[in-house]
Amino acid sequence: MDPTPHVVIVGGGFAGLWATRGLASAPVRITLLDRGNHHLFQPLLYQVATAGLSAPDIAAPLRHILRRQRNATVLMGEAVAVDTAGKRIALADGTALDYDFALLASGATHAYFGHDEWAPHAPGLKTLDDALHIRRRILSAFERAEAEEDPGVRRALLTFAIIGGGPTGVELAGTLVEIARHTLRHEFRRIEPGDARVLLLEAGPRVLAAFPESLSAQACKQLERLGVEVRCGHPVSGIDAQGVSLGDERIAARTVLWAAGVAASPLARTLGVPLDRAGRVPVGHDLEVSGAPGMFVAGDLASVQRPVGRPVPGVAPAAKQMGRHVAMAIRARLAAKPSPPFRYRDFGNLATIGRMAAVVHLGRLRLSGAVAWWFWLTAHIFFLIGFRNRLSVMLSWTWAYWSYQRAARIILGDSGNGDGGDQPRSTRQA
Amino acid sequence: MDPTPHVVIVGGGFAGLWATRGLASAPVRITLLDRGNHHLFQPLLYQVATAGLSAPDIAAPLRHILRRQRNATVLMGEAVAVDTAGKRIALADGTALDYDFALLASGATHAYFGHDEWAPHAPGLKTLDDALHIRRRILSAFERAEAEEDPGVRRALLTFAIIGGGPTGVELAGTLVEIARHTLRHEFRRIEPGDARVLLLEAGPRVLAAFPESLSAQACKQLERLGVEVRCGHPVSGIDAQGVSLGDERIAARTVLWAAGVAASPLARTLGVPLDRAGRVPVGHDLEVSGAPGMFVAGDLASVQRPVGRPVPGVAPAAKQMGRHVAMAIRARLAAKPSPPFRYRDFGNLATIGRMAAVVHLGRLRLSGAVAWWFWLTAHIFFLIGFRNRLSVMLSWTWAYWSYQRAARIILGDSGNGDGGDQPRSTRQA
Repeated sequence: MDPTPHVVIVGGGFAGLWATRGLASAPVRITLLDRGNHHLFQPLLYQVATAGLSAPDIAAPLRHILRRQRNATVLMGEAVAVDTAGKRIALADGTALDYDFALLASGATHAYFGHDEWAPHAPGLKTLDDALHIRRRILSAFERAEAEEDPGVRRALLTFAIIGGGPTGVELAGTLVEIARHTLRHEFRRIEPGDARVLLLEAGPRVLAAFPESLSAQACKQLERLGVEVRCGHPVSGIDAQGVSLGDERIAARTVLWAAGVAASPLARTLGVPLDRAGRVPVGHDLEVSGAPGMFVAGDLASVQRPVGRPVPGVAPAAKQMGRHVAMAIRARLAAKPSPPFRYRDFGNLATIGRMAAVVHLGRLRLSGAVAWWFWLTAHIFFLIGFRNRLSVMLSWTWAYWSYQRAARIILGDSGNGDGGDQPRSTRQA
Repeated sequence: MDPTPHVVIVGGGFAGLWATRGLASAPVRITLLDRGNHHLFQPLLYQVATAGLSAPDIAAPLRHILRRQRNATVLMGEAVAVDTAGKRIALADGTALDYDFALLASGATHAYFGHDEWAPHAPGLKTLDDALHIRRRILSAFERAEAEEDPGVRRALLTFAIIGGGPTGVELAGTLVEIARHTLRHEFRRIEPGDARVLLLEAGPRVLAAFPESLSAQACKQLERLGVEVRCGHPVSGIDAQGVSLGDERIAARTVLWAAGVAASPLARTLGVPLDRAGRVPVGHDLEVSGAPGMFVAGDLASVQRPVGRPVPGVAPAAKQMGRHVAMAIRARLAAKPSPPFRYRDFGNLATIGRMAAVVHLGRLRLSGAVAWWFWLTAHIFFLIGFRNRLSVMLSWTWAYWSYQRAARIILGDSGNGDGGDQPRSTRQA
């Protein structure tokens, strides 16, 4: 056997990819395992779901990104169980990978708060397949409304309910209104797409709860100006194929999207350590699992407490920082040196709402409206992986901005006419 | 009821869309029915299948194309039967459309020459869903080869057999070699993608049989120079999940693509008239169905004999010309004027083979190699619908040409790891 230490990294998201890159010059063999073949720029996934970008615009093959890193092997496969005592990870195809060091970074999936029966009626947004599924649902709703004779059904087809007022819910709601009022204008003969209702339903007291209250209020105002009906403090009590229940109130909506809850990937349960309420793995300051030497956890799967302030949030910059930290910790171990504890650097918080509408919170800086939107746009295009993607995204967006058109308005898949009972694939993990 | 004559057009391909446009100023109400929501630029479909272009690059929503044509209504739906006596078309959802004039232009689907059991093992290429399915198969084969320990299985995973030496087969074969030898180079650690075998299997005596013999020979030479193994005169006798049989010979190939036969869409059978061997509807010189007044057929679904020479071929320019002719014939009927018979104008024949390799046949002009390739490239980008698409395709291609990279190398869908038993949707018709 090759005596070079073997590092197995599960998940090619931000945490896994940044850890792999952080080990580029380390004397290790790396196996990066992912269920898909691509790294996904998840912050723009809602743009694929709303037909603004095509899937390849926001994804790049992992083995292409890592083609020059000779110590890294990319494997497409699914990890199903971890044996921390035997230092071995079992794969779905029956094979297994032995490791000296391992990083679990398989991310999060949707959680329906114990109501798994809601899943087929309210798809969530975590993978490219999810995004294409949601795109199909949204575009098909307008198509079906055009063919529908019954005014009640037509109304329900033109009602879109988004559950969850976090960043994803806000982005989806803002974009949906734009599609209805601008993109599809003049294209239908029997319906008026601009009559579509878009509701954003948030159980808590305000949208974008991770932001200061003043920015939440700004966001709410901007959403309403765009045409979104925002309802805060209304927990959803039921979802079925016909619509949503909020306590006694019933909203007939044929398209319901889930942006409310996430839970850590089920792989964490096989670690044999106690998990937090969301299924995440509590890790120490070095991101190692206690009692499982050489096993690290990073990204959305990790629960990291900070000495002061709130726990580390499940956002891309945090995942990248954790990935880099794990790489550094492994390098330190190999050199028999101590490594400093992980420290999260909070670079602030951005959320986009719609055309010329966003909020930004960076330390003491608070922006909203057009300035915040430009800030958000620049930051996102800059961080997109790959020059070609950046160029293509810029082209799509410039075009979309001036023409109100959306490039990817193509319904794909068998369920174009269907009732949406088909189940999307919904976890990002490897 | 509205007294304006109602024209129902089934299928938003080249024939249906050009007919609709040709009736823009006519005193009619048009309903354009299509099973999908988009017009597809089918000549570039192989580029989506081989990850060079993304699906939205070669498709545009029908209702967006027709947004300014106020007399046209686009409906997403599926025609299942035609009652020519009652002048009514039945839809899959139970409704029906009454017509004064109708055009069936629902195109062609794959035909397996009576071997429908081959379909799951050898997907064909007619729709965007087909293209994404083939893309997934091709990219997954390399991924699985990288994970495979058994050298025999690895060999079979790296063997690609394309059945049919027409334009689609030739394009797929040429592009596959390029992917293996250039695009994926340096990206795998256990396999050498350049070792992949690409076979083009043609039952007849030569590839590109619609071209003069000298150009067929040129095409064959160019394919072999690129690295394709061309076998002519070898009809396939069997296809299963493990490979292809050619008489006594057995080729272990885990990826088999079907580019051999097409048959007219099954809707034609409900017309109640005798069809030709490929299931197409024989039509008169005005493209009307004999015995069914007001019912026209155009595009791949029509069988049109010419006074001299071969029948009108199933290519995009012929479909456009037929669509335009039907529009003219309907306008003439409404004005109670006679209309001239349909006459096919043959603008020549182009086929691309690979990088800097193509053949062109235009009257007495015969080109091959780089000149033909540039000719083909310019013609195809020019005819692509929509400025934005043209720009995006040009960007993708320029990038792909210089970098050997392909923008859309993203495996989507549940069957990424699967054995390919999943069935793609395979007819283009409405």
